[in-house]
Amino acid sequence: MADSPNCDLKSLTPLQLFERVTEQGEKVRALKAGKAPKDEIDAAVRMLLSLKLSYKTTTGQDYQAGLPPKDLELINNGTTKEEDDDFVDPWTVQTSNAKGVDYDKLIVRFGSTKIDTDLINRIERATGQKPHHFLRRGIFFSHRDMDQILHAYENKKSFYLYTGRGPSSQAMHVGHLIPFLFTKWLQEAFDVPLVIQLTDDEKYLWKDMTTERAYEYAKENAKDIIACGFDVNKTFIFSDLDYLGSSTGFYKNIIKVQKHVTFNQVKGIFGFTDSDCIGKISFPAIQAAPSFSSSFPQIFNGKENIQCLIPCAIDQDPYFRMTRDVAPRIGYPKPALMHSVFFPALQGAQTKMSASDVNSSVFLNDTPKQIKTKINKHAFSGGRDTIEEHRKYGGNCDVDVSFMYLTFFLEDDDKLEQLKQAYTSGELLTGELKKVLIETLQPLIAAHQERRKKVTDEVVKQFMTPRKLAFEF
Amino acid sequence: MADSPNCDLKSLTPLQLFERVTEQGEKVRALKAGKAPKDEIDAAVRMLLSLKLSYKTTTGQDYQAGLPPKDLELINNGTTKEEDDDFVDPWTVQTSNAKGVDYDKLIVRFGSTKIDTDLINRIERATGQKPHHFLRRGIFFSHRDMDQILHAYENKKSFYLYTGRGPSSQAMHVGHLIPFLFTKWLQEAFDVPLVIQLTDDEKYLWKDMTTERAYEYAKENAKDIIACGFDVNKTFIFSDLDYLGSSTGFYKNIIKVQKHVTFNQVKGIFGFTDSDCIGKISFPAIQAAPSFSSSFPQIFNGKENIQCLIPCAIDQDPYFRMTRDVAPRIGYPKPALMHSVFFPALQGAQTKMSASDVNSSVFLNDTPKQIKTKINKHAFSGGRDTIEEHRKYGGNCDVDVSFMYLTFFLEDDDKLEQLKQAYTSGELLTGELKKVLIETLQPLIAAHQERRKKVTDEVVKQFMTPRKLAFEF
Repeated sequence: MADSPNCDLKSLTPLQLFERVTEQGEKVRALKAGKAPKDEIDAAVRMLLSLKLSYKTTTGQDYQAGLPPKDLELINNGTTKEEDDDFVDPWTVQTSNAKGVDYDKLIVRFGSTKIDTDLINRIERATGQKPHHFLRRGIFFSHRDMDQILHAYENKKSFYLYTGRGPSSQAMHVGHLIPFLFTKWLQEAFDVPLVIQLTDDEKYLWKDMTTERAYEYAKENAKDIIACGFDVNKTFIFSDLDYLGSSTGFYKNIIKVQKHVTFNQVKGIFGFTDSDCIGKISFPAIQAAPSFSSSFPQIFNGKENIQCLIPCAIDQDPYFRMTRDVAPRIGYPKPALMHSVFFPALQGAQTKMSASDVNSSVFLNDTPKQIKTKINKHAFSGGRDTIEEHRKYGGNCDVDVSFMYLTFFLEDDDKLEQLKQAYTSGELLTGELKKVLIETLQPLIAAHQERRKKVTDEVVKQFMTPRKLAFEF
Repeated sequence: MADSPNCDLKSLTPLQLFERVTEQGEKVRALKAGKAPKDEIDAAVRMLLSLKLSYKTTTGQDYQAGLPPKDLELINNGTTKEEDDDFVDPWTVQTSNAKGVDYDKLIVRFGSTKIDTDLINRIERATGQKPHHFLRRGIFFSHRDMDQILHAYENKKSFYLYTGRGPSSQAMHVGHLIPFLFTKWLQEAFDVPLVIQLTDDEKYLWKDMTTERAYEYAKENAKDIIACGFDVNKTFIFSDLDYLGSSTGFYKNIIKVQKHVTFNQVKGIFGFTDSDCIGKISFPAIQAAPSFSSSFPQIFNGKENIQCLIPCAIDQDPYFRMTRDVAPRIGYPKPALMHSVFFPALQGAQTKMSASDVNSSVFLNDTPKQIKTKINKHAFSGGRDTIEEHRKYGGNCDVDVSFMYLTFFLEDDDKLEQLKQAYTSGELLTGELKKVLIETLQPLIAAHQERRKKVTDEVVKQFMTPRKLAFEF
């Protein structure tokens, strides 16, 4: 039977929803005042945000304390009056649309370029590889300057890949794998060096966390990244806290970027305020600097002009818009980019998943049973409320999180298409679709866990030691 | 005969001065529009600032373009109505008083403590050394927490010294030696380790200079510092651009400071604006971090609680007020401080000397002849306009730059006192006083140059290599 975790909210009137938000707000305040455990407060805050979102989706109005909703027509989920309301920056992704962010609009807003069939075909010709399903399915959907990367590559001029992760917790979830799985495919298809930045300094700055803890998380996350199957001879993984103190080139590039970006600029790009600490304000330069090959003199033999390609989720684009603006002013090539969509939370595509909420996602250290329970219990369904209705009207793949997850992890195009048709027609029930997802993820994660076990501290150390890679520059 | 380089300005009426400022402003604009050589523009700007200062000293009003001065009583130099007008921050020292900044007022404003006879006597008892003449003569005049340093030292608990320099040019002038000469005395008297920061990154951020050039200046300046006679076994000199990339502890402390200081705070302390680059905004943390012993794990064996004492000119105090505010919040002891007065420019005590104006000061690479010419030509005199008047009324040691220089460099207290009496009484003429200064500085600088010749690149490398020093922690 189709299930929907939010059905109780959907059935509420705007006024009832208003009261629920008000109640929840009071609960949060009481928890904070009573110095309740952080987990409990966080969970209550998330519930509050979720209720506010439901309130807005239902009424088309922002919740305002003490101001009950005006009497409005109910607006259907997914077709709100405020479609332009998506908010995307490196820390917050928020949309009121259950299908998720409108990526075509984001391309226009960010000024990037859509990855179209021509570009995908050109990548196929250049590499001789069938394009990754993330490309075929529009999961990597936007780019900057990929034509330049390909033009140079076709003329025997190589480049390097740069991606990264903010190690905010010990355990990573399946969504965190997306940039790494795609980067691994790019690395193998193009045969190029790869640098992976773990921004433990960023996590120290933004979270309630010691530098030691952030560095520990970085090393633990490195294990999950390495377990994706990267080649130690072609890949350098670094923690900022560690590498900044052991590189002759990295700090020089950081300070070059810092000289060419004003507070006005980072205020405009990242929304910083005068109350933000100077660490946050100057951090964007630290994420920018690995875009320049002279940050890695040990790899690029001191060469300053090796082109960089950055595969990342679109929310990281602001960092690299800034980087691309600065690059020519400090004599470096602009990095090229490939952007992915966001990986949805189990609860729905309105927000990015959070590593701090264990139920928002399937984690790489979940047991097969946990995977099954989480998906059955939390995966937002695009199915109907009753079997009868589902058979009659069919499910909605555009908002069904299980189907979304399958587009990421089920490689077989034909099978995915069959599932889509069967679910849309009502032939396949939500429970059946979830079963396919469970049976897809369980072996993938089990295999990941097996590979991760083999990643010893010694192996991590090898990957994280600054050294020459198996390329000549 | 007494001479005064500014006598032509002093004889002008307020309106004539107003016209001179206006003319000079037009000249600066014309030079800039015509893209004249930087040296030429700089010289014209300095002249403009000097004229504006004279205008203000004479009229008690700020120069305003197009607004001629109101008819005012002439106000004597040194007794302007705006005695509170001193401006001191790490980049600008400005006073309209020819005696220089009012240091007693600065102590009140900065909230530091005067170095009094009791403290000097206690230093003498603790070290068994006659106090340095910089202490005896009030050149190091203010402190923070020296009582704590001494109390701990008397109880066999050691500390370390930290001072520094911004390497803005290849050549240093005699004023730059003041903190190093005093630090050397402290180091020998207390027998403690010393770290010397060369902020080449700061100079890159603030000046029109490459990182390579800033680093070259740092190494050149290190030679002059080493030539003061520091012991390589007890002293670590580092360039930020170099050491940040080779230390496991330095960056961690920088980011800890950066997490605990907001833009609002640095705006208040340093006057940064939204148009400043994020490098400048976050730089104060880089000058703060060496105040914490864990920035030097190789010296302090990873210990985090070794007390630090910073001898510096008072204009650097804002950095360390900020540092002292942050220290307890990141679990470190507050650094103690000893502040020196500013070393006056040859042209007068209104401003700090500038390394970019060769005539503002005696440089460490000046020849005996250059020393003589500069002092004779540029040293502002407190003498009278004619020999007759000088004999009758005597000279003014409070504003006489030659006499000020002698308080820094003539170690013999009796001789200094004799000179003061003879000059004040009119017995000694300006030319004779200048001769004493020339004969004091020439051998000092010649000896410095001799020692500097022996400082090879290899010696610099030794001082700048992170290593253990001859102390156990």
